[in-house]
Amino acid sequence: MDVTAPAHRLSAAVSAASRLLPARAGLRLRADAAGLTVAGSDPDRTVRFDCPSTTHTDGSVVVPAAPLVETLKVLDAELVRLVVEGSRLALRLDNARFALPLLPDTEAADGPPAQVSEVDGAAFASALRIVAGTAAKDDPLPLFTGVRLQADGDRLTLTASDRYRMAVARLPLLSPGELDVLVPAALLSEAARQARGRVGLHVGPGRFGVSWPGGLVGTAVLDAGFLSEDSIHSAAVDTTVSLPADALAAAVRRVGVYAEDRRVLTLEVGDAQIRLASARQDTGEAEETLKADVTGGRTSPSFQARYLLDALQAFGGERVVLSIQPGMRACVLRAAEPGEVALTYYLMPMLTR
Amino acid sequence: MDVTAPAHRLSAAVSAASRLLPARAGLRLRADAAGLTVAGSDPDRTVRFDCPSTTHTDGSVVVPAAPLVETLKVLDAELVRLVVEGSRLALRLDNARFALPLLPDTEAADGPPAQVSEVDGAAFASALRIVAGTAAKDDPLPLFTGVRLQADGDRLTLTASDRYRMAVARLPLLSPGELDVLVPAALLSEAARQARGRVGLHVGPGRFGVSWPGGLVGTAVLDAGFLSEDSIHSAAVDTTVSLPADALAAAVRRVGVYAEDRRVLTLEVGDAQIRLASARQDTGEAEETLKADVTGGRTSPSFQARYLLDALQAFGGERVVLSIQPGMRACVLRAAEPGEVALTYYLMPMLTR
Repeated sequence: MDVTAPAHRLSAAVSAASRLLPARAGLRLRADAAGLTVAGSDPDRTVRFDCPSTTHTDGSVVVPAAPLVETLKVLDAELVRLVVEGSRLALRLDNARFALPLLPDTEAADGPPAQVSEVDGAAFASALRIVAGTAAKDDPLPLFTGVRLQADGDRLTLTASDRYRMAVARLPLLSPGELDVLVPAALLSEAARQARGRVGLHVGPGRFGVSWPGGLVGTAVLDAGFLSEDSIHSAAVDTTVSLPADALAAAVRRVGVYAEDRRVLTLEVGDAQIRLASARQDTGEAEETLKADVTGGRTSPSFQARYLLDALQAFGGERVVLSIQPGMRACVLRAAEPGEVALTYYLMPMLTR
Repeated sequence: MDVTAPAHRLSAAVSAASRLLPARAGLRLRADAAGLTVAGSDPDRTVRFDCPSTTHTDGSVVVPAAPLVETLKVLDAELVRLVVEGSRLALRLDNARFALPLLPDTEAADGPPAQVSEVDGAAFASALRIVAGTAAKDDPLPLFTGVRLQADGDRLTLTASDRYRMAVARLPLLSPGELDVLVPAALLSEAARQARGRVGLHVGPGRFGVSWPGGLVGTAVLDAGFLSEDSIHSAAVDTTVSLPADALAAAVRRVGVYAEDRRVLTLEVGDAQIRLASARQDTGEAEETLKADVTGGRTSPSFQARYLLDALQAFGGERVVLSIQPGMRACVLRAAEPGEVALTYYLMPMLTR
């Protein structure tokens, strides 16, 4: 193999691939007339990123990811030449040479599963950022660590929950398709961060993948049942509050400083306003009043400050409508004027003492 | 006490004071016709920051620092009013009230020690950033955690060392003075970060302080003997190398990826160039050659990559001259064209295997 590539493009491809793989993984570099591809896999995952290149001699090698990533990150050069020299892959510049040992090639020859539909990359990434954020980072039940993706003809629904909150986002499919899978949230968010342009959705037996011009990420799906929005009671709304999400978030941050250890704040619904209040033995007390559009006004729910902040962040820059139900029923947050991605965020209230 | 202050100025003063004090310290706020001062102390330290204000009623209170810092940091208001209400200090805005408990006032009435000289704040901060960085963060011998400040008429010399390297910076005094103290490095760097304009140097029995328009930091000095540049042998220089510090640092970062665990790199001095090389079983090998002005060229020293990087950072953007001595004698780094702050950096070489 002998190939010349733009250093920053190769660095981006190599970094993206290594972030999606286990720490000590090897990366396969393959050069041919079409360019250079950086790929890797473990039993659960496959990733592939393309990089433009001028290929002098075709070839394919596997090298350790970490030193390749580190070297490319601090390389101060426009072009880098990669040449196989005996048992080494050499990265060559005019005044420097960095040589990586070749690893045994253990390629799993599986291609990606079949593409079933497509979505807009920006909308997909923005929906996933919120939805994947409500999945549990770590949970004995894998159900709560996944994002459910459902396509039913013309729209894609993303759902995740860690029991305390649930986010449901809907966005249009660019081509009709059907799918229903539960995919590890962490991998999916990292993949969505990389994705650009039209994003293909791929499904095969036990596997799911996303692809975009220049990249592909595949993963085993979770076999853990399905989350469903239908399980949440939302018919008993007796109060709605509408106000700018950022203003409420800022007030929660300020008043939260004075909340007790569990940081539970009560949102006292008043006439055309809401009031946040808290008190704590050692640090004093705080209260703040915000103007809001209020209907009903019979129920004043309490929330943990950090969960409320997470939920409000999903509506940053927008006016949010809180639909409040009495008792221990979820509060439903929606944008007053939803965009292309329609987000519904369910937040469980807390018992106050 | 009843006073109105610009929220961001008060926030800056309160944050600066609390950074210089132990975590659970109280802060004294004192308001009078001259404005508002934020002060605090512990057995070793005293700090004071001024904040402009409109004082309605004079007064002085002590409140817990943490909630005050946190609240001011997230306050979205131009002005904040501070009013004593019973056993509380209330921070009042139009639509909000935050109330902090008053703490018992245990003022140490000591003023700052007498001013003995002055330096330029920017030069002092830039010299301290480098010199304090060579003090040990934590060492059984307090000697190595301090910065020695010596004034002898018209210039100030700052010296610190952790045994492996020593930095010595000289800058002009703005008024003649004499002092010789060893001051905790961590506190001194934080103080220098705050200082602006002309910085006063204060010395009293067992104490040292720096002051500037709007602020004052005082501390007990270390009683631990004195570091001295004279103890370093520097007469056996047989090789000098001159090149841009940033270029050498970048090469050290790249080649260092391939260094063994101790990350020792040898700087092979050649004819009008130097060569860095390293090799490591699992990650391969690297070499990089840099153009340099070389005289002598008999000695090729080895350094730990991170110490060499620290030293080179002190000469960022400048051409650095390395004066190299044979054997286990210090390498002396100086700027090719020193500015107002004249820095000498001694770096101990490593034995290679």
